[in-house]
Amino acid sequence: MPRTIRLASIPGDGIGPEVITEALKVLEAAIPGDVDLQVTEFQLGAARYLATGDVLPDDELAAIAAHDVILLGAVGGVPGDPRLVGANIERGLLLKLRFALDHYVNLRPTALLPGVISPLAEPGDVDFVVVREGTEGPYVGNGGGIRVGTPHEIATEVSINTAHGVERVVRYAFAKAESRRSVLTLVHKTNVLTFAGSLWKRIVDEVGAEFPGVTVDYLHVDAATIFLVTDPARFDVIVTDNLFGDILTDLAGAISGGIGLAASGNINPDGTYPSMFEPVHGSAPDIAGLQKADPTAAILSVALLLDHLGLADAAGRVTDAVTADLSVRGETEGPRTTSQTGDAIAALLVK
Amino acid sequence: MPRTIRLASIPGDGIGPEVITEALKVLEAAIPGDVDLQVTEFQLGAARYLATGDVLPDDELAAIAAHDVILLGAVGGVPGDPRLVGANIERGLLLKLRFALDHYVNLRPTALLPGVISPLAEPGDVDFVVVREGTEGPYVGNGGGIRVGTPHEIATEVSINTAHGVERVVRYAFAKAESRRSVLTLVHKTNVLTFAGSLWKRIVDEVGAEFPGVTVDYLHVDAATIFLVTDPARFDVIVTDNLFGDILTDLAGAISGGIGLAASGNINPDGTYPSMFEPVHGSAPDIAGLQKADPTAAILSVALLLDHLGLADAAGRVTDAVTADLSVRGETEGPRTTSQTGDAIAALLVK
Ligand SMILES: CC(C)[C@H](C(=O)O)[C@@H](O)C(=O)O
Ligand SMILES: CC(C)[C@H](C(=O)O)[C@@H](O)C(=O)O
Repeated sequence: MPRTIRLASIPGDGIGPEVITEALKVLEAAIPGDVDLQVTEFQLGAARYLATGDVLPDDELAAIAAHDVILLGAVGGVPGDPRLVGANIERGLLLKLRFALDHYVNLRPTALLPGVISPLAEPGDVDFVVVREGTEGPYVGNGGGIRVGTPHEIATEVSINTAHGVERVVRYAFAKAESRRSVLTLVHKTNVLTFAGSLWKRIVDEVGAEFPGVTVDYLHVDAATIFLVTDPARFDVIVTDNLFGDILTDLAGAISGGIGLAASGNINPDGTYPSMFEPVHGSAPDIAGLQKADPTAAILSVALLLDHLGLADAAGRVTDAVTADLSVRGETEGPRTTSQTGDAIAALLVK
Repeated sequence: MPRTIRLASIPGDGIGPEVITEALKVLEAAIPGDVDLQVTEFQLGAARYLATGDVLPDDELAAIAAHDVILLGAVGGVPGDPRLVGANIERGLLLKLRFALDHYVNLRPTALLPGVISPLAEPGDVDFVVVREGTEGPYVGNGGGIRVGTPHEIATEVSINTAHGVERVVRYAFAKAESRRSVLTLVHKTNVLTFAGSLWKRIVDEVGAEFPGVTVDYLHVDAATIFLVTDPARFDVIVTDNLFGDILTDLAGAISGGIGLAASGNINPDGTYPSMFEPVHGSAPDIAGLQKADPTAAILSVALLLDHLGLADAAGRVTDAVTADLSVRGETEGPRTTSQTGDAIAALLVK
């Protein structure tokens, strides 16, 4: 009997649908013959909100959760659209999925693939993975305002960090480091955020005792941005909180060929809920529908998705096809359309 | 009668004393003949704490506050020193000074000076100023822990943002933009930190109405790190919160010739308290006492200090001397000592 994989696809807004079309094209081409891939599409995002007023209804969340895996494009409308003022698509949809599906590992690999030009004068070897915590920290949405709109307004944001939440992501990061070059760098701001910082530091020390083969390093987040630019080769696995991880991974994308190549997985390692794979880039409404978007980040997210499903072979073939395609891109005349890039990568896949 | 300037000098730890020696050398050489400069040195930092157990006693804080201006080197002991575990020199000394003296503008200019090599392949024009809020946000030290040290520990950090605090720094930033190229970029994470983000956004809109000649832009902090690498020329004045400003200014240093050139001012624009000038870099205990530190950031901080005191002429001469020195540095044989660089810059000053 063939294995069945039920995939929930959330193309989203802007360039999301275009890049997801290509990602699914490559996924179909890469998936082993004995796997029956069933794709259900969910129309969610700013466009859906503007049409129906819904952001993520409970029954749709439950329907998504019943799938094996999720592929997401990008969500978010045109910045400043007055009709979106009351809604927060990012919190109500993207973060709601990450939190409700307990995606406590936000996995963001960065590598400077052959043929790709870095904006750094001397990029050195760039090959590291950021393990970003995905379910707590400053992202929890706790906080509020009093005297809002008056000269006496006070607005708070509460970062919540738990031993439970930190320990599980730190353990994942150590295991990841052990499977790579065995260097783990904790990034935080322990000298200023002393309560959360001391929790992270202690847990890294404790869990580290179980991984004696892994060298542990620590950097303040400000210093980490410097080293990402001046010496990215020093990083193997970075483990960090939700907000610092958000910032560092955009920077990591910038130094390694651009956010157009940055893939990510929102992972629930326990398997209680489906994991979700998405490009790190946003919905880029300014180029939506123009076939200008680069689908590579979405396609590399498919590689992470396949790997997560235990289909390491297929994952490797997708990455190889992307690498092969990247190395000839400079040679093409003029810019390619989104679907030309998808076609080129799909054509390079050998089953 | 000559004007008297009472300067409190806090050399601090590590390379702090070495770079402050050179900064004072240049300050003495630059200051107009009719100014009587009186320097009082305060021995504060990790070394003092280890010797006496004091971090910043109230009477010393009061004595410092009675000066016209403060020059600080760097504070912080050797990372991991077990004798420093109970103390937090950064919070207890540096942040205490910034908060107690109401340094609500943390001014951090970034420019790629002629002759300086950037790690970016195509740096373009780098000439912007970060106006970092200095007295609130995630830096307030509010938060705590329960069940500390158990598997049920919860640690919180509360970011506190007030209309009062945001309005005054935003107003300063608009005025700064008006005196430069008239572009102000707010950097925040309004889509996730919705309470604080909405306060910042509204106040920028409100104050902006008073500065119709200034173009206002907005970037999420993650996107801002990308543009700092790929298109730094787009920035003129950035206004942002305490934590984002910390991160962005280290990155800004990295792309513009290194943190060894990054100067800063902690400013109380009201003049109620003395402002404090310091290099952005840390105490670098690993090279302390070896005459390896580059005093340029401390010397450029002296230029900011002079400017703040209304001695714009002297400030300009310090900047010019640094620029002249930087353009010949590549020609020197081998690395210079800290004091050789100070001497070279002081020698270039023409009264
Ligand atoms: C869209 C936004 C909420 C999101 C985040 O901050 O996590 C994005 O920047 C990302 O990195 O996936
Ligand atoms: C030492 C530390 C507390 C400080 C900060 O975070 O503000 C430093 O990084 C800086 O940027 O001046």
